[in-house]
Amino acid sequence: METPNPCMYCANDTRVTDLMIRIGELSVSVLYLFKEQTYKGRCVVVFNKGHKRELFELTEEDRNAFIGDVSKVASAVSKAFSPQKINYGAYGDKMPHVHFHIVPKYESAPKWGSTFDMMPETKILLSQTDYDDIIREIKKYL
Amino acid sequence: METPNPCMYCANDTRVTDLMIRIGELSVSVLYLFKEQTYKGRCVVVFNKGHKRELFELTEEDRNAFIGDVSKVASAVSKAFSPQKINYGAYGDKMPHVHFHIVPKYESAPKWGSTFDMMPETKILLSQTDYDDIIREIKKYL
Repeated sequence: METPNPCMYCANDTRVTDLMIRIGELSVSVLYLFKEQTYKGRCVVVFNKGHKRELFELTEEDRNAFIGDVSKVASAVSKAFSPQKINYGAYGDKMPHVHFHIVPKYESAPKWGSTFDMMPETKILLSQTDYDDIIREIKKYL
Repeated sequence: METPNPCMYCANDTRVTDLMIRIGELSVSVLYLFKEQTYKGRCVVVFNKGHKRELFELTEEDRNAFIGDVSKVASAVSKAFSPQKINYGAYGDKMPHVHFHIVPKYESAPKWGSTFDMMPETKILLSQTDYDDIIREIKKYL
């Protein structure tokens, strides 16, 4: 038996699909909708030109393209759902593969004025139809 | 009496200097050392070509330069202190001015494997000499 790739983003297996729904490809990344939707429109942008741990391991060209993708997604989510602010977070201590969480923040929603919860205790999970509606809205502005 | 600028980064007043020590200027940003040093080498990179709230409000040129600055700082902190991972966070719900927290994470330090605390309850504040030593180390690699 093959040992699974320790990086879930490179393997693109159920460790990813349990958490996220693939929306599509951008210039140097894959865009996912995060299933937990406490922050309506929350997405993840994953670099997909190989396994890189840190921003500074990317070539200048890829780094610029990647932040272009991140920026484009933040703008689309902003237009789609009118949050008061977008938060951007890249952590990955134990799953180091360059990716950004794009988290729309709302004055009326949890953690306004603070950071965001990676995985809130009270999870908001939606029906496939509701996920599809959110994805359709985001895609309008990509 | 003049009303103070609501943005502390634009005003560059004690709201900033209480929290951070200015290290110097990069291409389109100012680099600060965060005084709270639970995460040794933690810095903040603040966009300084005007007041912009979101990454997608920057021109492509400025956005590329800004992420270049962020990347350069992350690389310098990594070389200076050998953390196991760098975290990157931009929030600013109530202080919306484009800036990134560059937070080195260590297996032996708090919140390894998770996000980072914006302001840990147990604060690690250092002497000016110790801050100077950290700044000198970072500058070596900038």
